[in-house]
Amino acid sequence: MKSQLDHVSVLKQANVYFDGKCVSHTVITANGDKKTLGVILPSSLTFNTNAAEVMEITSGICRVRLLGQQIWTKYSAGDRFEVAANSRFDIEVVETLNYVCHFV
Amino acid sequence: MKSQLDHVSVLKQANVYFDGKCVSHTVITANGDKKTLGVILPSSLTFNTNAAEVMEITSGICRVRLLGQQIWTKYSAGDRFEVAANSRFDIEVVETLNYVCHFV
Repeated sequence: MKSQLDHVSVLKQANVYFDGKCVSHTVITANGDKKTLGVILPSSLTFNTNAAEVMEITSGICRVRLLGQQIWTKYSAGDRFEVAANSRFDIEVVETLNYVCHFV
Repeated sequence: MKSQLDHVSVLKQANVYFDGKCVSHTVITANGDKKTLGVILPSSLTFNTNAAEVMEITSGICRVRLLGQQIWTKYSAGDRFEVAANSRFDIEVVETLNYVCHFV
C-alpha cells in the first residue's frame, strides 16, 4: 500500500464531522476523481453516504456494520470495505483510524 | 487566496495532536517543500516549533501569543503569522481553524 497520494490537488478547507471526531481533507486526482483522506478518533458513529464509496483503512482498528447487516466486521490497516450509495454504516473506532475514501 | 494546493503529494497518515484537537495532513509540493494542512478545534493550546514556520489561516478565528510576547493578536481568514525555529506559541482558537503551515 502506497503511503501517499501523488499528483493531486488538496482543498485547504477540511471537512469536520461529529464535533471533530472525524476530520478529512478532500483530494482531487489528476484525472478528476474525488477522494477524502481522513481521521476518525475512537468513537461510535453512523455515517450516511450519498455516492457509493470504498473505505481503505490506512491505520487503526474499527468494527463496521453495514445497513441491513446484523454482524460487525473488524477492519484494520490494508483492509477495505464498500458502502452502497444512499446508505449508511455504523462504525466503532477502537484505535484512531486513518482512511482514504474512494467514491465509486 | 487559492482554495486548494495543486500538483502535490499527500501522506495518507495524518498528524493528530492534543487528543485530536489538532489534525493535519502533510503535503509535499512539486519542488519538494513540505507543508501541513490542518484543523484546530476550539481550544487553548501551546505548540512547539522545530523549523521556523508561517501559519496561513484559511478560515476560523484565533488569538495568538508568540514566545516572549505579552499581547495576544487576533487572526482570521487570509492572515498569516510567523513563528521562529525552536520556539513556541500559545493559541486560543475561538472558531474552528483551517490552516496551511509553511516551513521556512
